[in-house]
Amino acid sequence: MTLPRIAVDAMGGDEGVRVMVEGAALARRRHEEFKFLLVGDEKRIAAALDNHPGMRGASEILHCDDVVGGDELPSRAMRRAKTTSMGLAVNAVKTGEAGAAVSAGNTGALMAMSKIALRTLPGIDRPALAAIMPTLQAHDVVMLDLGANTEADARNLVQFAVMGAAYSRIVNGFERPVVRLLNIGTEEIKGTEELRGAAAMLTAASAGGGLALDFDGFVESDKINRGETHVVVTDGFSGNIALKAIEGSARFVTDLLRQAFTSSLRSKIGFLVSRPATELLKHHLDPNNHNGAVFLGLNGVVVKSHGSANAKGVANAVAVAARLLENKLTERIAHDLAELGQDALGRNGKGRASGDGEVAL
Amino acid sequence: MTLPRIAVDAMGGDEGVRVMVEGAALARRRHEEFKFLLVGDEKRIAAALDNHPGMRGASEILHCDDVVGGDELPSRAMRRAKTTSMGLAVNAVKTGEAGAAVSAGNTGALMAMSKIALRTLPGIDRPALAAIMPTLQAHDVVMLDLGANTEADARNLVQFAVMGAAYSRIVNGFERPVVRLLNIGTEEIKGTEELRGAAAMLTAASAGGGLALDFDGFVESDKINRGETHVVVTDGFSGNIALKAIEGSARFVTDLLRQAFTSSLRSKIGFLVSRPATELLKHHLDPNNHNGAVFLGLNGVVVKSHGSANAKGVANAVAVAARLLENKLTERIAHDLAELGQDALGRNGKGRASGDGEVAL
Repeated sequence: MTLPRIAVDAMGGDEGVRVMVEGAALARRRHEEFKFLLVGDEKRIAAALDNHPGMRGASEILHCDDVVGGDELPSRAMRRAKTTSMGLAVNAVKTGEAGAAVSAGNTGALMAMSKIALRTLPGIDRPALAAIMPTLQAHDVVMLDLGANTEADARNLVQFAVMGAAYSRIVNGFERPVVRLLNIGTEEIKGTEELRGAAAMLTAASAGGGLALDFDGFVESDKINRGETHVVVTDGFSGNIALKAIEGSARFVTDLLRQAFTSSLRSKIGFLVSRPATELLKHHLDPNNHNGAVFLGLNGVVVKSHGSANAKGVANAVAVAARLLENKLTERIAHDLAELGQDALGRNGKGRASGDGEVAL
Repeated sequence: MTLPRIAVDAMGGDEGVRVMVEGAALARRRHEEFKFLLVGDEKRIAAALDNHPGMRGASEILHCDDVVGGDELPSRAMRRAKTTSMGLAVNAVKTGEAGAAVSAGNTGALMAMSKIALRTLPGIDRPALAAIMPTLQAHDVVMLDLGANTEADARNLVQFAVMGAAYSRIVNGFERPVVRLLNIGTEEIKGTEELRGAAAMLTAASAGGGLALDFDGFVESDKINRGETHVVVTDGFSGNIALKAIEGSARFVTDLLRQAFTSSLRSKIGFLVSRPATELLKHHLDPNNHNGAVFLGLNGVVVKSHGSANAKGVANAVAVAARLLENKLTERIAHDLAELGQDALGRNGKGRASGDGEVAL
């Protein structure tokens, strides 16, 4: 198949146009078939393209003057969906001008715009934000929701489980990923009513054999990175708390390590000698290597690149978008939901008032 | 003043009597005035005391045969409050036979028994579990609730803030600790209704000047260990998720580091050379050095030692109990609540059904 082109919001992110275009070019060096719709200030995009001659023929520029601010309220940004680079990139997915959109801008605004433009899939009440994180094993762990919804009921959590499993199958190749619900203990009585309800529904559906995943109860947040769980399912509040706690703690330990290694001449020498080892660690923990969070549950692929990602990180986000297109993520989720049966989940309803646009990753 | 003696549940914890008695002895080597009521199997306690001659004169043994199981439901354990080592240790605080209790047993059971035996302080609807964690600065950060209550309303969170500040003043010596609410963003509109309500109440109370703390809005979980916040306030679910995510992530990074350092001869040599530096890191991250979580808001001091703590960890938990007694934690909290004024907090009511006994740290 011919890969549909990828719309890139060239204006988002801390570094702006240069890094976004360089990231797209880097991704294309690995995958020659990638084509782009670069959305934003034409002059600046053209100037950035000058450094990447190979990109010219693979890119079309969609000019606009307006940009969503990093601190802007999603409700305000949404009113400018037709004029901003973010809004136009998402809209290109809606109209079919692009197969997927990548943006490093305001997460809440991207979520709100994507939901309005692309709508949720049949059988999905709310989309969720999913990311991958490194583990002690060779494979990554998928965690969702990371902040698209401040609250989630049992049915939402079951839908997140199905979406997360589809994502895990694509990025890690597991036929039946091991899925667990994030909780504060592993016994059945632990946690909230929503968690216990979701566990009961997933256990019943797993026993029926219709689900392409292995549901295995609860997992505590100290086990997320062990690699025994392939998909960690949670509401957006807890997921955001867990994700950022993991990131902050990893940074804390590496900061302490840096302090320790520079505390004496002897330890500086030791550091130099063991450099290849610490470089390996650095590579493993570099968030750019895991960049690209995905809004799951929409009629289309939207990938959020971290605001502070470098070109390598942007290239990873672009590659994630391409991979999800190639592997027909949207169709897979729709298929899995149909398998699960609407009885277990209820119909695609209005759900509760959504807490979207709450979070900046 | 003469320090009241400390009741030690000698039967709790993964290692049992030997470690608990050794921990008490270690604490006493640093603080000769410590006296103990050791609760549990008399023979085994007496045997353990044989290794610590100095402890004989400083200890009384309270014999019992019954022990609370690690996986036991709190509701079941509570029925044996009069026969178990944990129940009797807590009861000794109630009767005044001891000033504080330390246990390494089942957290949920300890919480439930403490609540029933000691009751909450006037002005406190629910007790909370608080712990200290290392930061990049010289001082520690206090975080609460860590799992005593699965949910917390705005008033509970304000009470946690007052209790956490009192604790921080004692352990870190800040006159007005910087207190923040854990949230998924720092803007005023972020998070749940409970968080926004608590923020409004704390802002108003701070402005009045009556609070012995500086409330400074929200903090995200990646900043907990930076040291800029002295007290992080949250509900027990999010607090437990954040605490364990931090612990798990720190272990993940140190596991990767160990893998990296043993991956080649060169890195092994580098490791040996820089050993003093990595030992410093190890010391800083050793949970035994921060052992001793405290149930705040009760008419008495109850300290939870980690189930897997070694003797050094138990000694720290005992020292925490002593320090809180010396500094009259309970009286301070009662005083601060009175200062705050009951109007802001409402009266000490029944509150909602408590989610206590939910969690095992």
